[in-house]
Amino acid sequence: MANEKKFVQSITSRSEDFAQWYTDVVKEAKLCDYSGVKGCLNYLPNGYAIWENIQKNLDARFKETGVENVYLPVIIPESLLQKESKHVEGFAPEVAWVTHGGGEKLEERFCIRPTSETLFCDLWQKIVKSYRDLPLVWNQWNSVLRWEKTTRPFLRSREFLWQEGHTIHATAEEAEERTKLMFKVYHDFVTEELAIPLICGKKTESEKFAGAEDTYTIEAMMHDGKALQSGTSHFFGNGFPDTFDIKYLDKNNNLHSVYETSWGLSTRIIGAIIMVHGDDSGLVLPPRIAPTQTMIIPIAQHKEGVLDKANDLVARLKKINIRVKVDDSEKTPGFKFSEQEMLGIPTRIEIGPKDIENNQLVIVRRDTREKITISIDDLEKELPTILDTIQKDMYDRAKKFLDEHIYEANTLEEMKEIAKDNIGFIKASWCGSEECEDIIKYETGGCGSRCMPLDEQDKTKEKCVCCGKKAKHYVVWGKSY
Amino acid sequence: MANEKKFVQSITSRSEDFAQWYTDVVKEAKLCDYSGVKGCLNYLPNGYAIWENIQKNLDARFKETGVENVYLPVIIPESLLQKESKHVEGFAPEVAWVTHGGGEKLEERFCIRPTSETLFCDLWQKIVKSYRDLPLVWNQWNSVLRWEKTTRPFLRSREFLWQEGHTIHATAEEAEERTKLMFKVYHDFVTEELAIPLICGKKTESEKFAGAEDTYTIEAMMHDGKALQSGTSHFFGNGFPDTFDIKYLDKNNNLHSVYETSWGLSTRIIGAIIMVHGDDSGLVLPPRIAPTQTMIIPIAQHKEGVLDKANDLVARLKKINIRVKVDDSEKTPGFKFSEQEMLGIPTRIEIGPKDIENNQLVIVRRDTREKITISIDDLEKELPTILDTIQKDMYDRAKKFLDEHIYEANTLEEMKEIAKDNIGFIKASWCGSEECEDIIKYETGGCGSRCMPLDEQDKTKEKCVCCGKKAKHYVVWGKSY
Repeated sequence: MANEKKFVQSITSRSEDFAQWYTDVVKEAKLCDYSGVKGCLNYLPNGYAIWENIQKNLDARFKETGVENVYLPVIIPESLLQKESKHVEGFAPEVAWVTHGGGEKLEERFCIRPTSETLFCDLWQKIVKSYRDLPLVWNQWNSVLRWEKTTRPFLRSREFLWQEGHTIHATAEEAEERTKLMFKVYHDFVTEELAIPLICGKKTESEKFAGAEDTYTIEAMMHDGKALQSGTSHFFGNGFPDTFDIKYLDKNNNLHSVYETSWGLSTRIIGAIIMVHGDDSGLVLPPRIAPTQTMIIPIAQHKEGVLDKANDLVARLKKINIRVKVDDSEKTPGFKFSEQEMLGIPTRIEIGPKDIENNQLVIVRRDTREKITISIDDLEKELPTILDTIQKDMYDRAKKFLDEHIYEANTLEEMKEIAKDNIGFIKASWCGSEECEDIIKYETGGCGSRCMPLDEQDKTKEKCVCCGKKAKHYVVWGKSY
Repeated sequence: MANEKKFVQSITSRSEDFAQWYTDVVKEAKLCDYSGVKGCLNYLPNGYAIWENIQKNLDARFKETGVENVYLPVIIPESLLQKESKHVEGFAPEVAWVTHGGGEKLEERFCIRPTSETLFCDLWQKIVKSYRDLPLVWNQWNSVLRWEKTTRPFLRSREFLWQEGHTIHATAEEAEERTKLMFKVYHDFVTEELAIPLICGKKTESEKFAGAEDTYTIEAMMHDGKALQSGTSHFFGNGFPDTFDIKYLDKNNNLHSVYETSWGLSTRIIGAIIMVHGDDSGLVLPPRIAPTQTMIIPIAQHKEGVLDKANDLVARLKKINIRVKVDDSEKTPGFKFSEQEMLGIPTRIEIGPKDIENNQLVIVRRDTREKITISIDDLEKELPTILDTIQKDMYDRAKKFLDEHIYEANTLEEMKEIAKDNIGFIKASWCGSEECEDIIKYETGGCGSRCMPLDEQDKTKEKCVCCGKKAKHYVVWGKSY
């Protein structure tokens, strides 16, 4: 049968070829697909449903902090993109240009937005007059386009989905607070909902966002030891707003600069979910974000009462807000099991005639494959607990993996040795110069600076591992996606 | 004070200059704003929050019928757009072309999607093989771009937000059923949630979507008597899919065509909400879709206990899922009243020291301005009932207006007379020829065919009002946005 074939095919093992394993999972779990538009993705239902749950949860967290959603245009006039010099340097090489519209050559080119700082500033310049208009704490859920040369599903594609938050404030302090607040929102969301442990901190000068004063980042470790930048929050100071001439009058009619932030999290995070939690049977989704939390698989479903019982369980679980489905297709139970595993559905429920006779059912955990037999009467009590346990265990396993793959080094030689023999991150002190940063990256075969953890700056050793001069920062180094 | 000014300014009266009234409401209620990108809108928080509620509600209705969400690219290669000849004829003149990307001239141009039929077909051609793969019932929430010459907020802009559903089926019957089902979903959503009564039916040949066999439309009457096409559902037959060579094998290994539908509803509908329900004080939002359903306005808020009481009411109302805010700013109550009216918030609650003493509060309806004094203890019981009543009354008033502005005509002369003296729609029989359709539109000063109501075809009179030949359809005619 055509459908069955797809899941009977085994995927490449994770240890054998991690990159191929990743591609196989994305394809076999039908998360996304390369489109006829080179470098762009079709987000298929299984992949988009994960993004919808991410949106729903993160958006609620945003709104709790006072964020309002807006939507600004998909195209940006060239003159607007060029207003801020560092910004245009960062983005101009990788944008797509619209030159014709409505059958005519345009007087001015437009780029498809690679990010929207310039549009927000242009709007704010028009509408901000007084201290009463501040702060503005806005966000949009949209797509952006960057003309990348090489692409990989979710990790790097020409178009990707994300949210971009943009805010302006009356004081630098307030803007810095907002930058850190959104950094914390990302941290809490990713650890609590996606069960992904993080290394968090500031980016070095060379890794900052084009035009920002400070960039805060959350970094996750994939199963191959590489880092994935999973969300960033930027403090712009008043540089950007001043360039756009956004000023406000205070209570005493004095004119002031405003202070800006922006922050974003994208569909890259789906790549992190796959590469942190997945295994050789496919995807493993954290229960809190899984579009389907449990799949009921009836055994001997042709026998009287089995499908009725399965549907009864669906109704009971929906009542307690469990996202549940029943697979009553004609495939064999064994086939359904591997399909549910490939899709990463956190639990399956097996129920057949004998189970019904004994008033019991079997819950199988996707993460550990543990089989748990419970009384049918206890379903509403047991399943939520099992889902909570899976969520916690997934985090704990990933945290253990992260902790076990972080090393410390005192010299560049040590770093090189560690990087040669191990996967993971290396912590080491650094003088702050871009030259040393480049040397370290080159000598270690690609370990760039991931971030400078805020709470670990007191661990800075006296000397930079590279040049031996006075160290300024304690840095986490690692290869990255 | 800067903020106050904006709302003390009165807006143009609706009867004096409807178009200016509309523009004033959009501006003063801060729904959207023309952006620095000509013809494109900035959707501001007040406007976007309405769209978010529309999305949330409509998306849930879609999913109840089995729709899955996906996301396909923002750009379409020229060769793909050109595959279906009627489709490209319809859209090519109004698209924007991307000619450069990543610093280089592209080998093939891309247009920013004006709609995504071609992308969906291209994807389906790759993934549909067997009857087991069908049906595919997909939708995406996105923006599209059409290079319009003249634009008006929400009604016509170069970029607009919408959802576009695309489905394929094994049989024509199933696809037709889906077309009608989504037409019904739109009807139910717009009447039940937006309190907008509708005229529904099929489009005539000349008004159909480019490439469709049948287009079903829901049409609303604005307060100036003009029609606004508020949602459309298209049946494509197998024309489009055959062009893209999408075929499936049935159980007996025979190859078949698939049958396609698409359906969309856009931010135009926000224009309908404004123009059906608004009045000379501004916007009037139906409670079910209003981002804020009640605004609590404390009277003499500096007095002890007033703000505490207001916040207590907020907490109580949030518990029963009422979307509530308190306006504790320094503005005067009178100013807050007109602001709440301009924003169209369905109810306000006034509470001051005397009310608290008497254990009462005042609820004021936005639609009728009726003041209802209730015991504070009864708030949870009374407010939801009042909101339901407002929702129903708004629909009933709009329905009465619609019914009172529909006329019947037996001859072209009658139509011309009616169109000269009245605003609204005219029902009249028609032979089915495009020539008569054009003549009627010209002679009546712009009354085009809006639709052919499905349930009124038996009312078709013997003769076409225009040529006198045998009539085939009973048509609703009207001027439109």
